[in-house]
Amino acid sequence: MLDSLFNPESIAIIGASRTEGKLGHAILANVIDSKFAGPIYPINPTASEILGYEVYPTLADVPGPIGLAVIVIPAESVMQALADCAANDVGAVIVISAGFRETGREGLKLERQMAEIAEAHNMPIVGPNVLGVIDTIAPYNASFAVGMPSRGHIAFMSQSGALCTAVLDIALAQNIGFSRFVSLGNKAHLNEIDFLQSWADDEQSKVVMAYLEGIVDGERFIKEARQITKKKPVIAIKSGTTSGGSRAVSSHTGTLAGSERAYEAAFKQAGVLRADSISEMFDLAIAFARQPLPKGDRIAIITNAGGPGIMATDALEKSGLKLAGLNPEIQRKLKENLPAAASVLNPIDVLGDARSDRYKAVFQTVLSDENVDAVVVILTPQFTTEIEETARALADAFEAQPAASRKPVIACFMGEAHMHEARRLFYERNIPSYPIPERAAAAMKAMVAQASWMAKPLPEFEEFEVDRETVAKIFAQVRADDRVQIGDAESRDILVAYGIRIPKSQLCTTADEAATFAREIGYPVVMKIASPDILHKTDVGGVRVGLRDATDVRDAFDLMVYRAQKYQPNAQLWGCLVQEQAPDGKEVIVGMNRDPQFGPLVMFGLGGIYVEVLKDVAFRIAPFNREEAMVMMQEIRSFDLLRGVRGQPPADLDTVADTLLRLSQLVTDFPEIVELDINPLMIFERGQGVMGVDMRLVLKSE
Amino acid sequence: MLDSLFNPESIAIIGASRTEGKLGHAILANVIDSKFAGPIYPINPTASEILGYEVYPTLADVPGPIGLAVIVIPAESVMQALADCAANDVGAVIVISAGFRETGREGLKLERQMAEIAEAHNMPIVGPNVLGVIDTIAPYNASFAVGMPSRGHIAFMSQSGALCTAVLDIALAQNIGFSRFVSLGNKAHLNEIDFLQSWADDEQSKVVMAYLEGIVDGERFIKEARQITKKKPVIAIKSGTTSGGSRAVSSHTGTLAGSERAYEAAFKQAGVLRADSISEMFDLAIAFARQPLPKGDRIAIITNAGGPGIMATDALEKSGLKLAGLNPEIQRKLKENLPAAASVLNPIDVLGDARSDRYKAVFQTVLSDENVDAVVVILTPQFTTEIEETARALADAFEAQPAASRKPVIACFMGEAHMHEARRLFYERNIPSYPIPERAAAAMKAMVAQASWMAKPLPEFEEFEVDRETVAKIFAQVRADDRVQIGDAESRDILVAYGIRIPKSQLCTTADEAATFAREIGYPVVMKIASPDILHKTDVGGVRVGLRDATDVRDAFDLMVYRAQKYQPNAQLWGCLVQEQAPDGKEVIVGMNRDPQFGPLVMFGLGGIYVEVLKDVAFRIAPFNREEAMVMMQEIRSFDLLRGVRGQPPADLDTVADTLLRLSQLVTDFPEIVELDINPLMIFERGQGVMGVDMRLVLKSE
Repeated sequence: MLDSLFNPESIAIIGASRTEGKLGHAILANVIDSKFAGPIYPINPTASEILGYEVYPTLADVPGPIGLAVIVIPAESVMQALADCAANDVGAVIVISAGFRETGREGLKLERQMAEIAEAHNMPIVGPNVLGVIDTIAPYNASFAVGMPSRGHIAFMSQSGALCTAVLDIALAQNIGFSRFVSLGNKAHLNEIDFLQSWADDEQSKVVMAYLEGIVDGERFIKEARQITKKKPVIAIKSGTTSGGSRAVSSHTGTLAGSERAYEAAFKQAGVLRADSISEMFDLAIAFARQPLPKGDRIAIITNAGGPGIMATDALEKSGLKLAGLNPEIQRKLKENLPAAASVLNPIDVLGDARSDRYKAVFQTVLSDENVDAVVVILTPQFTTEIEETARALADAFEAQPAASRKPVIACFMGEAHMHEARRLFYERNIPSYPIPERAAAAMKAMVAQASWMAKPLPEFEEFEVDRETVAKIFAQVRADDRVQIGDAESRDILVAYGIRIPKSQLCTTADEAATFAREIGYPVVMKIASPDILHKTDVGGVRVGLRDATDVRDAFDLMVYRAQKYQPNAQLWGCLVQEQAPDGKEVIVGMNRDPQFGPLVMFGLGGIYVEVLKDVAFRIAPFNREEAMVMMQEIRSFDLLRGVRGQPPADLDTVADTLLRLSQLVTDFPEIVELDINPLMIFERGQGVMGVDMRLVLKSE
Repeated sequence: MLDSLFNPESIAIIGASRTEGKLGHAILANVIDSKFAGPIYPINPTASEILGYEVYPTLADVPGPIGLAVIVIPAESVMQALADCAANDVGAVIVISAGFRETGREGLKLERQMAEIAEAHNMPIVGPNVLGVIDTIAPYNASFAVGMPSRGHIAFMSQSGALCTAVLDIALAQNIGFSRFVSLGNKAHLNEIDFLQSWADDEQSKVVMAYLEGIVDGERFIKEARQITKKKPVIAIKSGTTSGGSRAVSSHTGTLAGSERAYEAAFKQAGVLRADSISEMFDLAIAFARQPLPKGDRIAIITNAGGPGIMATDALEKSGLKLAGLNPEIQRKLKENLPAAASVLNPIDVLGDARSDRYKAVFQTVLSDENVDAVVVILTPQFTTEIEETARALADAFEAQPAASRKPVIACFMGEAHMHEARRLFYERNIPSYPIPERAAAAMKAMVAQASWMAKPLPEFEEFEVDRETVAKIFAQVRADDRVQIGDAESRDILVAYGIRIPKSQLCTTADEAATFAREIGYPVVMKIASPDILHKTDVGGVRVGLRDATDVRDAFDLMVYRAQKYQPNAQLWGCLVQEQAPDGKEVIVGMNRDPQFGPLVMFGLGGIYVEVLKDVAFRIAPFNREEAMVMMQEIRSFDLLRGVRGQPPADLDTVADTLLRLSQLVTDFPEIVELDINPLMIFERGQGVMGVDMRLVLKSE
């Protein structure tokens, strides 16, 4: 769909200007300077030539087909220009002009019309309110950015045009290359999802970086992002994570922010790597653009300095990576080739006087260790250190690996004044290098995470046989009653319809019937007086627990009925509810509320203070699969209480996972459910299942 | 004490060498190049002149007094050289040579002798195994570092010589100035504490940076660091925080590592700011070296870009800082001077087309707001942005503030290629600048924390009137019995001796006596059969709780004695223990274990799973004061349960703090206590106090 944007046969600039310092001039100049190969058509009714190019008064005057039009005129004329574009079969449009959604409702309305024009004429629109688009492959620079990045393998999109300028300025200084560079702006038509789709199969783009303030369609985002992340890494910054930041997003973009925990869950489920700053985003992207992914998480550290070796160990362990345990044979080999004072344990200390040959020999030996998946090489500029030579030796050894089975290496040459040459060399030889071990570790962590994500197949979602019809009927009744909350009996019916076990119970009208049912479900049982008129059952002795045999049940029946008649003679009596008594177990809460951006956000946590005081909860967006449900449970800090510690038996986690999936199916089947809690869900010992004791469910107000 | 080191009248280099590429040559060259003003004496028995300087065969041949001697000869000759130094009244010594502690026990022994020589002759020794010492004030460069940093206000010490080289290389590239630059090495004599003491009153040093792998004397470190941090900031990296890193420290330095949580507590109590990387250490130091401290935590953000404004808001809020709420009068003033689309809420968006004059006007207005304590100014390089002019305008406005009441400002000019001039200007004008908002926020957070720390007086430690003698006697008895654990009755006596309430109890020999005592302490009471022979009291019905009146007590007494006699006729019967029954309350655990580096590490947490599964605990090193005890309690995640939530009454936190302080006094008074837990300590409602129900205490094995 975006071929017309990324591979245009010609470019028209609507609003090209003679005046330097105007955007319409800067953009034309950029298109020309970018060595775009096709025709360039400046459009301006009052000029005849700009920067040596013939100017056309209107689009209709252009002699050839128009691949891409860039609109850079005042907001009030933009809609007419778009109509002209549509009339002249333009392939794609970039609307640079600002003054739409960000100025109020009228602007938002115009943006909706833009989207309609785009769809009606199959003419994708970027913007409005953007810096522009740069494509180093086509190549063209249809932006008013100061400078054009070099060709590379990073595709970038940003919801903030200003951030584009900062990112570009960093890239220019560090010679970081891009394939595509897109300012998303107000996203009237094209949004992040379209570019994710487009870049999934873009061979020029090995890694995607994104700066996002909000997401247009959360559910679709997860679905599409999950596709591309199985092929290449996507690194995103999502700003507005704090309450202050989220307020700033709303006032800046005018969109309703999804909750931070929903974003957190969504990125996790979609395999999107989250960066906390543009530095981190670059650090990760550079590693991905230049190195193969590791096969595992066992990292070796080679260093000429003890202190930095310790720092690297700390950083890697904090990232959840493992220090490789070297093969004894490899250790023996290292020992042979190193001075006695060197350490051949990991981190491997080649000592302060190590020259390039020692580094190279050790590096090669370590690469050959089957217990090592990746290597971090640290260097400090000591008295006899050969900085550039070591960099070259490492690059040689890295490249000497068979291309198909290369292990990744990250360099951490610490310092700055004497490091420029080595960094340049690493850059040319495609070895990522960072000045401090902490950044090397963060990049390594991302590489390991991406490798592990790509090794897993796309999730398949189980579908349970459920009784949708019953639930639909109940909801219809709730609607008919003009309610949004459901009642007790309705809750029970919904849980049963979706295969979630509840305490067995039956309304019994005689003591005999009660005793018979109690024997059926097994002792002990609970009994409650059943009357629509008795609100406070315990006040009239109308609740009894722990009834252990038929005598207990008969006695309780007669006594309850007698007392109810005595204390509330006018009450209508239906009999007694006989109910299975839940055995001892752990209380958990499973719940859902509907996030404005991502839909059904499902929660899991232990009951009571764990959720309420400790906020010890985990979230996923439905639908998710069984493996995700299991990981979700493991994310809570109090998971050990369920897994079984201190002599307690392990809980039936398989059935809890099952319940989470059934709940997930329920809230997906019925988008009108806005809130739901099963609280408590009793969990029993492994093999004994669960029991939903109480449920609260709220439907959307009409 | 360190005057002789930092202000030497002359420098001798023992081991000065003719041969380029040798350390003894490099150090001499560095001393010469550093423009040291006093005489320089190369010492070498086989040379007559090096680098134009006359060489002396021995120290005794030197014609004048020797302020500082640098020893750079093989390890085996170092002790003799030190003896020569002592004999020739050398002021201070730097031992560059390696080959001591790091090679084994013999080396450690030699280091102990070094310390003895140093103390005996009042001749402080740096090292051995160091890069050297650089002093830009004296000035001299007595190191084999490649290059000398410029003069500045940062004092730096590092336990890793290699890290020194990296730090120096960064400083050289960024023109970051130092006052003193010390490689600590093996710390045979001078260690981190000596330099903290020396730099506390060093007017040349505004901020101290330290890289530490271990600390020589934890208790003294806290005491001394607390002194200097009340005068100037100390930023430290402590490596070896993970288990892998800690193993690496031990193998690298041969020292027993203190626990990470002890370091965490120690740095907190000493006011030492902890950095996680050398980048962060520099970021913080630069801010401190160049800016005044803020008066509070209310930060204003000025930005020409919405996205980066959101990122800065996120970063500041995550750091625990507040976005200033601007004075309405100031907002009105801003509105008058800004385009309509600008935001005059915080973050203040001056819009993408802001030139330097708009930035300056807004910055001045914001500085004048009494609701603002500090300002972060963000700039992205947009189309009409005046980068250098804006930097200059900001610096002008900053300096235009009255010197005594300047509010700090941090610049965040995002980008790189076009930012060099602005950064240089900021550097010259003493305004810290960072390329991303997250680093600006981290620096601001440190400045606010330092200001708040300095505003608080040094802690004063309460001393309770306690009965030390009783405890000393109990411990003597435990020793005499060849035990390390104490018994039940001993525990109770110790708690009472230190003023910690325990359940009242008394051994009663008759039912009458029991009833009388029960009335005295108040009902309900607990009773236990008292016999040295009945181990499982409950098995013979020997424990009763909830006894409510004299009849209950008499009945229980007679029944217990009857049953004991019946079931265990040979048991010796002492009577019954009558005990106060603890009212309902919350169970907490207070405990202590002795850290190898820092001594008594006191722990606080809620009882049971909170400590055991959730690891929800807080630590402080004794002694600490009441305020620190209160903060310690607030640090646990489950603090809300104590504070009183969900309709529960607040617990008596004052008395818990009191108990923590008394416990702290106990473990400080008796260093032989290696482990102690009061578990549970029952806490009652506010005003109702606490009760130590059970205590475990272990003394050091002899």
